Amino acid sequence: MESLLAQLRSAVGSPAVLVDVDVTASYRRDMMPLAPCGTPLAVVLPTTAAQVQEVVRACAAAGVPIVPRGAGSGLSGAANAVEGCVVLVLTRMNAILEIDPANRLAVVEPGVVNLDLRTAVEAHGLFYPPDPSSYDWCTIGGNLATNAGGLCCVKYGVTTDSVLGVDVVLASGELLRTGRRTVKGVAGYDLTKLFVGSEGTLGVITRATLALRPLPQAPSTLVATFASTVDAGAAVTRVVREGVVPSLMEIMDRTSIRAVEQYLKTDLSAGAALLICQSDAGGEAGRRELAAVARACSEAGAELVHTTDDVSEGRDLLTTRRSVLTALEVLGAWLTDDVCVPRTRIAELITGCERISAEVGLPIAVVGHAGDGNMHPTIVYDPASEDEFARARRAFEEILGLGLELGGTITGEHGVGKIKREWLEREIGPVALGVHRAVKDALDPEGLFNPGSMFSRR
Amino acid sequence: MESLLAQLRSAVGSPAVLVDVDVTASYRRDMMPLAPCGTPLAVVLPTTAAQVQEVVRACAAAGVPIVPRGAGSGLSGAANAVEGCVVLVLTRMNAILEIDPANRLAVVEPGVVNLDLRTAVEAHGLFYPPDPSSYDWCTIGGNLATNAGGLCCVKYGVTTDSVLGVDVVLASGELLRTGRRTVKGVAGYDLTKLFVGSEGTLGVITRATLALRPLPQAPSTLVATFASTVDAGAAVTRVVREGVVPSLMEIMDRTSIRAVEQYLKTDLSAGAALLICQSDAGGEAGRRELAAVARACSEAGAELVHTTDDVSEGRDLLTTRRSVLTALEVLGAWLTDDVCVPRTRIAELITGCERISAEVGLPIAVVGHAGDGNMHPTIVYDPASEDEFARARRAFEEILGLGLELGGTITGEHGVGKIKREWLEREIGPVALGVHRAVKDALDPEGLFNPGSMFSRR
Repeated sequence: MESLLAQLRSAVGSPAVLVDVDVTASYRRDMMPLAPCGTPLAVVLPTTAAQVQEVVRACAAAGVPIVPRGAGSGLSGAANAVEGCVVLVLTRMNAILEIDPANRLAVVEPGVVNLDLRTAVEAHGLFYPPDPSSYDWCTIGGNLATNAGGLCCVKYGVTTDSVLGVDVVLASGELLRTGRRTVKGVAGYDLTKLFVGSEGTLGVITRATLALRPLPQAPSTLVATFASTVDAGAAVTRVVREGVVPSLMEIMDRTSIRAVEQYLKTDLSAGAALLICQSDAGGEAGRRELAAVARACSEAGAELVHTTDDVSEGRDLLTTRRSVLTALEVLGAWLTDDVCVPRTRIAELITGCERISAEVGLPIAVVGHAGDGNMHPTIVYDPASEDEFARARRAFEEILGLGLELGGTITGEHGVGKIKREWLEREIGPVALGVHRAVKDALDPEGLFNPGSMFSRR
Repeated sequence: MESLLAQLRSAVGSPAVLVDVDVTASYRRDMMPLAPCGTPLAVVLPTTAAQVQEVVRACAAAGVPIVPRGAGSGLSGAANAVEGCVVLVLTRMNAILEIDPANRLAVVEPGVVNLDLRTAVEAHGLFYPPDPSSYDWCTIGGNLATNAGGLCCVKYGVTTDSVLGVDVVLASGELLRTGRRTVKGVAGYDLTKLFVGSEGTLGVITRATLALRPLPQAPSTLVATFASTVDAGAAVTRVVREGVVPSLMEIMDRTSIRAVEQYLKTDLSAGAALLICQSDAGGEAGRRELAAVARACSEAGAELVHTTDDVSEGRDLLTTRRSVLTALEVLGAWLTDDVCVPRTRIAELITGCERISAEVGLPIAVVGHAGDGNMHPTIVYDPASEDEFARARRAFEEILGLGLELGGTITGEHGVGKIKREWLEREIGPVALGVHRAVKDALDPEGLFNPGSMFSRR
């Protein structure tokens, strides 16, 4: 392996090849405590696509696997090292190469932090929608690899809906350029969307052309409280049927509400569930949308409905939702799950989580993106207790089974990674698994990239 | 081959296997006169996915290629028969299996006519955006295979943006189910978007789950005329910069305007270019959007700008745009091209087409979806003249070269099919072509599906 290390040093420069285990330890895993991780042979921090190509060629020749990663904010272990691998960290490739307001696009390197891109394009009156919770530190490359979502998805879709093209270093070391700079184009297979969400198993994304939108109007906000989750679920269904597409619609269950009340030392006056909804349509259209949401909530039996055009009050109300995970940390460690169910079945998911919570004897707070059915049941446990950790893991798995039973998916936005591999097979079945394997074998025949992630090759 | 015909008859019933060349002739080609086509061995019209599986297995065993097709409205020859193939016609699988308003989705068979789906979901207050020009006779299966577009794309995207999942019969005869019924989900590779737009080269789509939207507000319409194409192009750029996303924005050049004036016996009072724009935001928001468009047009030097909230007047104005191809038929046969350029380069494309028109000595009318840069330069020629046909073909090719020169793509929405194979290679380059071949080999190792379409395998 000494000759590989020498080649890596020659490719990226010695200071960009880390081998000290105390140093490489911080690049071993992402934010998902359940996922396994190994010790890397080396951590490499390239600054150009050409360097990435050299690293890939060297690793391929040595038969050493590569795990690409960004900031490590992921929640599926997709970025976790496998034993003896090279961890390829893209954070130093963090240039915003171009912002083209007349064609509403940006060209970026993968290490750009999501928030930095948002801020840069805002200066041109433009908007990059994907907003994962970790938007202030996660990178675009990781967002692309996991097809990240966020609060915006109900109106603006997930990451793939904002990507026009990518550059990818393939297992052969060749640089593939997919997509185009035009907003429309159907020449050939949609390779862009094949690589987006492939979790680093097919290649290394070294550049992306992203579609931008006009900056939306200042948001109006609505909050509604419910005495039962069934009522809250009915409100979501009514909003969907009403034909309203809010710019966000979030739900918090009883456990989340209590945790936030305790943490923020406030009284939310919410019984069993709380909905927070925004419209960014502006003016009369925004008022019309939120009035329709208010009507839907009232008709579904809301206890209280409050609407405001005040942006800072809206921000405060949203803080309630954004504080859930921090509030839960006061109670213990958290383990957040990620299932997406048809929007008509949200109440059943929450009720099912209450049952699982009682079974395992641990609190489960359900928060999520009600507008698209993407729920994050979050299990709270004592990290010092092996028994509680085992029960938390059991709850995590049971929630996945519940999501599938309700006609949903095992991951709405976090990805499969190294924790839901068997669940992917269960969701998609043997034929689709076979197609996954065929695509993987076609593009990465030696299994160089992120082995063991997403699915097993045999 | 007799044993294959017997197997096909056993699979779908004798009346659904056509072999008489006079009868099969009408299934040999789509609407693109330039594309080659062969004589099929048989035309087969299955009514179930199980029948499609049987047909695929029988053809695979006999080594006879399959060309899947819908109504044949395509403009790239993708649906054209190859010599000795089985043409698999999906038009009899035309059931709308489900409309679920609470989850805003529909499940359909591939033979459903686009307009029939639009009408059916409208009854539930819902909207299926993709609206290719042939929407009153093209089928959803063909729309999926070609990733069809239309006037709606500037706001609502192409077909792939409305697809949640598909059922596909693979070359092995297995039935693959991709995607899900939830609006969000990232489990595994995005196989749905790999099959959408693959032009029947990877499998046969037998069912689709489609995302629906709320029915938009009644549209307001704006029409603006310009003394020069440069001014009209500048207006489009200003609209994009202004942050407006109209629900459609179409452009017609001088040749299109004159043809329509002659055909409709009207005076459009338009010099060199005409823009037609709609907003479906409704009320104040719609007025705000069209006011911004009006301002952008005036600042770009429009001669006349007219805005109306009257829906039937709007429909009449749009008829002008929709009449272009029919109007051109009075002058000769037409050959419509399909390039997409960055929105800032529309004027250059029109000017370039004027140059090509002069060079080949044939009229070229440029119409297109200005909002996304997808232009359809349409060459008019005398179908009885071999010389004119050859010149039309030359112009067709030169327009593709021009599109690429301007940083665009060789197809915005019609596809590659059997006419732009070499151009695909030119656009995407050898590495991307290699990836296409690897994906094709992985999913269709014997080259069963639509051989020779999109790219050559070796």
